[in-house]
Amino acid sequence: MTETKVIPAAAITIFGAKGDLTRRKLIPALYNLFIDNHLPSRFVIYCVDFLPMDEEVFKADLLDGINQFSRNGKADPVIWETFAQRIFYVQGDFLQAGTFTGLKEKLTAFDKANEQPGVRLFYFAVAPRFIEIISEALHKHKLCNKIALHRMIIEKPFGTDLTTARKLNRFLQERFDEKQVYRIDHYLGKETVQNIMAFRFANYVFEPLWNNKYIDHIQISVAEEVGVGKRGGYYDSSGALRDMIQNHLLQLLCVIAMECPAAYEAETIRDAKTRVLKSIRPYTNANVFKQVIRGQYTEGTVNNMPRPAYRNEEQVAADSNTETFVAAKLNIDNERWKGVPFFLRTGKSMPRQSSVIVIQFKDSPNKIFKDDIVPNRLIISIQPELEISLLFESKVPGLEMKLKPVEMDFMYQDAYSETLPEAYEALLIDALHGDATLFMRADQIEAAWKVVMPILDAWEKHRGKKLEFYPAGTWGPDACNSLLRPHATEWFSLPPHKGNGTHIPHP
Amino acid sequence: MTETKVIPAAAITIFGAKGDLTRRKLIPALYNLFIDNHLPSRFVIYCVDFLPMDEEVFKADLLDGINQFSRNGKADPVIWETFAQRIFYVQGDFLQAGTFTGLKEKLTAFDKANEQPGVRLFYFAVAPRFIEIISEALHKHKLCNKIALHRMIIEKPFGTDLTTARKLNRFLQERFDEKQVYRIDHYLGKETVQNIMAFRFANYVFEPLWNNKYIDHIQISVAEEVGVGKRGGYYDSSGALRDMIQNHLLQLLCVIAMECPAAYEAETIRDAKTRVLKSIRPYTNANVFKQVIRGQYTEGTVNNMPRPAYRNEEQVAADSNTETFVAAKLNIDNERWKGVPFFLRTGKSMPRQSSVIVIQFKDSPNKIFKDDIVPNRLIISIQPELEISLLFESKVPGLEMKLKPVEMDFMYQDAYSETLPEAYEALLIDALHGDATLFMRADQIEAAWKVVMPILDAWEKHRGKKLEFYPAGTWGPDACNSLLRPHATEWFSLPPHKGNGTHIPHP
Repeated sequence: MTETKVIPAAAITIFGAKGDLTRRKLIPALYNLFIDNHLPSRFVIYCVDFLPMDEEVFKADLLDGINQFSRNGKADPVIWETFAQRIFYVQGDFLQAGTFTGLKEKLTAFDKANEQPGVRLFYFAVAPRFIEIISEALHKHKLCNKIALHRMIIEKPFGTDLTTARKLNRFLQERFDEKQVYRIDHYLGKETVQNIMAFRFANYVFEPLWNNKYIDHIQISVAEEVGVGKRGGYYDSSGALRDMIQNHLLQLLCVIAMECPAAYEAETIRDAKTRVLKSIRPYTNANVFKQVIRGQYTEGTVNNMPRPAYRNEEQVAADSNTETFVAAKLNIDNERWKGVPFFLRTGKSMPRQSSVIVIQFKDSPNKIFKDDIVPNRLIISIQPELEISLLFESKVPGLEMKLKPVEMDFMYQDAYSETLPEAYEALLIDALHGDATLFMRADQIEAAWKVVMPILDAWEKHRGKKLEFYPAGTWGPDACNSLLRPHATEWFSLPPHKGNGTHIPHP
Repeated sequence: MTETKVIPAAAITIFGAKGDLTRRKLIPALYNLFIDNHLPSRFVIYCVDFLPMDEEVFKADLLDGINQFSRNGKADPVIWETFAQRIFYVQGDFLQAGTFTGLKEKLTAFDKANEQPGVRLFYFAVAPRFIEIISEALHKHKLCNKIALHRMIIEKPFGTDLTTARKLNRFLQERFDEKQVYRIDHYLGKETVQNIMAFRFANYVFEPLWNNKYIDHIQISVAEEVGVGKRGGYYDSSGALRDMIQNHLLQLLCVIAMECPAAYEAETIRDAKTRVLKSIRPYTNANVFKQVIRGQYTEGTVNNMPRPAYRNEEQVAADSNTETFVAAKLNIDNERWKGVPFFLRTGKSMPRQSSVIVIQFKDSPNKIFKDDIVPNRLIISIQPELEISLLFESKVPGLEMKLKPVEMDFMYQDAYSETLPEAYEALLIDALHGDATLFMRADQIEAAWKVVMPILDAWEKHRGKKLEFYPAGTWGPDACNSLLRPHATEWFSLPPHKGNGTHIPHP
């Protein structure tokens, strides 16, 4: 968030209270915000879900979630007690008006008890099919009115293609102001992703080099060690392109490629990011199968454990053509990036979890040393380690002028002893403060869909064409190197974990 | 050295065999070159000095020097025995022809015993008054003939001002080729100083920023913890300007400020360095006392030990005006450095030994963050730690966009487990191989003297004028900050020792 404002009161309503997200992410994040005194003095958390629940049992499960997933470890019993008093389980069917009229009474009563109207935050931790249903009810029953204090947070996926995303945006825009809608891409809440803007625009030693004169190409990799797990039902109709590229990887690309905004302010920053998306050269039928590689994992071993083939995972079709891996080359058609290819890759069932951005600089024009020179490389590790390092050539100690690349490092965990706030803490507090910087605007979402549509269309048209297989526990199909070969480069190995036990858990 | 050539044989003659330099630096360096197999298979070391000595007693003292000062610790008795068989003590008065005719017989015999003529290296580890005497004898008795294999290494000080340096250069040039004369500035042999060229010219992320568009100013500090010690007799007639600025600090400046040479080759590199010296804006009578601060230490405490005032040190005049500290501002009048001030400082009896170059970058033109921004700073530590670090702004972990400068580091001792070669090893092996890159050419020496002459002249003319005093154990007189104040900056604190016990000893 850009600055701290005092919020008098806040009512946070979570739809989908019994879901995994609530238990693993939202409640632990809210609890951490509470212990760090970031929540307003008056707040309530209404947790809405379909099933009847004993409130104490429900809360015991939330506590269990904190103990298991919070970056701060086990909850303090006394603090938890105080916090838990603000949590209310609200049983209700999203399809029934009564759910919302009942909720409205609670929200109105809460507002009345306060000296001035507070923030109302509605969190959609629900399956996509409920978004329109719930938002329509919020509108109809006047729970979320057209005022800035009333806000909704919508989880991804936001649409399944450009048409559905547009339709959903229109639907929301007819009922609410764009400024009330907070579309989450939790990658934007990550410390290292936020730091990229500081890194680029608060320093004068990187930005002058940040262009096609000095940069050869850029690699953005988000490798997941996990497979599809129990999400097969959702995933098999989605795939890595929708699940990762359209949102997380394109957003990372935006932060890396954007122009310096005129101010650190939500609209200006989102304008700059949207401009990047709109400048991406559209894929064509002719090049989509050359520039985008899709893969699917087969049986293998990940982290010494057997992993079934994707097609044998729960709720996955036995002849599924859904991609669990994507590698894509793209170009940004503007003055800064002309001629600099961007390579994106993401995959499941890879050897380890690792999100890394590599800025590969060009070779120095000076050729005065005998040794071959490895061009400079800036490596921004997002997870699990938060680290920035610069590979540079240095003289090898000794009597001859021999060169060797070495690394200059900055590790967050060395510089800061505290654990870092989780992405969801940053996003929730920002939404409470009305700061939309780290959220996706309607036009951003649509621009991102527009980038991937030619790929989705081509794959839809040619089912299974050039679907490459890779054994679980490898870095993807061999074919993904074909993207980089014409640029005389290769995918860089993702840095191994430094492993000092302070890794940030993967949201 | 630029490349390894096989030398068939080498006869190394050290004049001043009983001096401190031989025992502390030259013999340990030659011994280390021997154990690392860098010396030719056939070599001899003739150690010449005035006093009659028992050769075994002499060698025992050299061994003692190795055990005390070598980076590799105590000598291996067996290896030492083999090495010591190549060492011969030659008693002789530098003023007597017999010394040289006797030596010539030995050298001729050594050459004859080899299949082809070897390198003859004459090391002048003697007081300056002997340089002309010995070199005249080498010339007259034809020990050092006008052939590339015959070389002489001359220690600093090379002259005491421009006139004497020129005279000495002429004297040598009348008798030898310039290519036979190796003038030492041992700073150029230091690993980190050699690395600056690799750092600047083998990387493409620094050189584009290495100019007045991005750099605000540059600080070069060489702080010595030692006082004048037992060198009072020499030092009182010399002072910090002659002893440190004219050679070491100006040479560091050259490596930092030079243009990229067209090749990594002695003459080209020395041309580039000489151009820097010739582009330094000359001091004038009007500005010399403003731009150059001189200081002298008074009584104080260094490293918890009492230190007498300079004027009370051995062999120092009680009313001495000799400077033990100099801080100087200078400008380089060329396109790259127009408007970028260089600040040099050196002093004795400072809190700790530290040689550091700081490249202070300009403020970023982007002002999108609320926080004040500390401009980037590149810190090249030469000793005691060998380290390169980059100060840059980074987001402080937390829910607000707050910035804080952090450091990206590269430490030699982390990257390389071996101890680094000492400067004298690099210099001796280079001289043996005929590589003059790290040595001073006649015109370089003269250009450096030309830079400091207006200061020497002004101080000579106005004895004691504006001599500032500073207590031993402090960072110099308060006045030295007056140089930087008009540039809205200050001397940066020299980094404290990281102290993991692997410091490189100070040559």
